[in-house]
Amino acid sequence: MKKGMIKVSAFYPNGGDNTFDMDYYCNKHVPMVAGLLGDAVKGATVEKGLVGGTPKAPAEYAAIGNLYFDSIEAFENSFGANSDAIMADLPNYTNSEPVLQISEVMI
Amino acid sequence: MKKGMIKVSAFYPNGGDNTFDMDYYCNKHVPMVAGLLGDAVKGATVEKGLVGGTPKAPAEYAAIGNLYFDSIEAFENSFGANSDAIMADLPNYTNSEPVLQISEVMI
Repeated sequence: MKKGMIKVSAFYPNGGDNTFDMDYYCNKHVPMVAGLLGDAVKGATVEKGLVGGTPKAPAEYAAIGNLYFDSIEAFENSFGANSDAIMADLPNYTNSEPVLQISEVMI
Repeated sequence: MKKGMIKVSAFYPNGGDNTFDMDYYCNKHVPMVAGLLGDAVKGATVEKGLVGGTPKAPAEYAAIGNLYFDSIEAFENSFGANSDAIMADLPNYTNSEPVLQISEVMI
């Protein structure tokens, strides 16, 4: 992704009683979101947490999902009208509350 | 990046008295790390946190840096010998302690 693009990330906390259905997330949720937001989405990535800073430390996040947009406006315009549908799908793959962040691509 | 690759992320906490020199990080630290680790690094990305889950919420992380490797072994073999030099550069761009995580690329 190019410098200046907007990256919208959802960090799903690991540990405790937290659950995360990676299969559902990759094969149902992300395609659904990409379909709802359409051309505004310039890319989507998903990663699965393996370990933390030391080999025996648990990963901070069980999963991280990222969507790329050309601008904050492009994100807001496409996401706003679909946020209810997107958030309503959350219980289908996790019982955790994701940390959300909007970032700017530097490199 | 391809499914199955290893993504090593450093999340630099935002807020409080935390400082982060994005210019140094992008133009000195990341190139230094990439140079030390050589061909094992298959890609590097950096993002700057803008806002959190709502427009007025601060970003959880001031910056996130990511390196991609073909395998955990490739990361360990290249990083292990250089970890002291890499960690010694930390005070040159931040006073915060990054959250580290190794993830697997799913999408």
